[in-house]
Amino acid sequence: MSHDLIKELRESTGAGMLEIKAALTEAGNDKDKAIEILRKKGTLKMGKKADRIAKEGMVECYIHPGGRVGVLVEINCETDFVARTDDFKNLAKDLAIHIAAANPLYISIENVPAEVVEKEKEIYKEQAKGKPDDIIEKMLVGKIAKYYEEACLMEQPFIKNPDIKVRDLLGEAVAKMGENVQIRRFARFVLGS
Amino acid sequence: MSHDLIKELRESTGAGMLEIKAALTEAGNDKDKAIEILRKKGTLKMGKKADRIAKEGMVECYIHPGGRVGVLVEINCETDFVARTDDFKNLAKDLAIHIAAANPLYISIENVPAEVVEKEKEIYKEQAKGKPDDIIEKMLVGKIAKYYEEACLMEQPFIKNPDIKVRDLLGEAVAKMGENVQIRRFARFVLGS
Repeated sequence: MSHDLIKELRESTGAGMLEIKAALTEAGNDKDKAIEILRKKGTLKMGKKADRIAKEGMVECYIHPGGRVGVLVEINCETDFVARTDDFKNLAKDLAIHIAAANPLYISIENVPAEVVEKEKEIYKEQAKGKPDDIIEKMLVGKIAKYYEEACLMEQPFIKNPDIKVRDLLGEAVAKMGENVQIRRFARFVLGS
Repeated sequence: MSHDLIKELRESTGAGMLEIKAALTEAGNDKDKAIEILRKKGTLKMGKKADRIAKEGMVECYIHPGGRVGVLVEINCETDFVARTDDFKNLAKDLAIHIAAANPLYISIENVPAEVVEKEKEIYKEQAKGKPDDIIEKMLVGKIAKYYEEACLMEQPFIKNPDIKVRDLLGEAVAKMGENVQIRRFARFVLGS
């Protein structure tokens, strides 16, 4: 089993050493076959992680100075152990502040009701009236992507580091904490609105 | 105009001196007539106060130690001046803590959907099966009153002083602050539920 091949697979798949060795053995040292095996296992594993019940975690809140905007957010992880870490607590605090500032309407794209997307599309179509159909179609794709980026928490640029999305922040947390971490729900109140 | 009569009316109606004098003049010093006038004015005034736009106030939150229960609540008053008082801030904090502890489902009786009341009634009827209709009817009234007291924030005994209801706490605040004070909305998250 070539050391270079293992190294290459580690870099390209991000899988662990033992997993790669097992996959290469199973694949008879065929690189592509090994990647396929890793992918299948990886997918299974990712699926497992996303399915694993994330019912620990914490409820965090943030009141913007002046008391006119407030946020309540529930962040889930899998174990009380992770929930008690500073990393997890900081993530929850950051997300509460982010929600206060960035005003998301939904957690992720899947949470946007179909009729809302349809309504957005109609507005854009109205704005683009008279333009050729293929141009309108292209515009629509861009406009909807823009809408998701504004309305969906997971798609929003993270307020403390706009180079990444909130989705990436969560991905980093999952990688670091080794547990499924999810934003379960949030409420955002603006005084008098 | 008798001083004793004015004093009596002040105690029984809680109205101001000038209002009482005006009512007595209007009523030709007839006590009952004066009370009626004051009541009418009082009602009008209360109605006005309840209608007056309460769009100031604050959003307050409370996280129960351990981070498993969190509450976000919006309390409205009419002016920023009142919103900045310690009394108002303490009221908001007390209400957030109360909601965390007492788990209301609705703000007031009017917010309970008709189908929820119907469902509760059905359950109680099932429990009382076989009993005479008039007894069932009496039980139902009591059970529904009990349900409102458990489910409606305004009807709940105030957690810091169970001798009064939250509704009374708010009434006291309205009297003390001289403004319409309302619980506009709340969110209560319990971890993993």
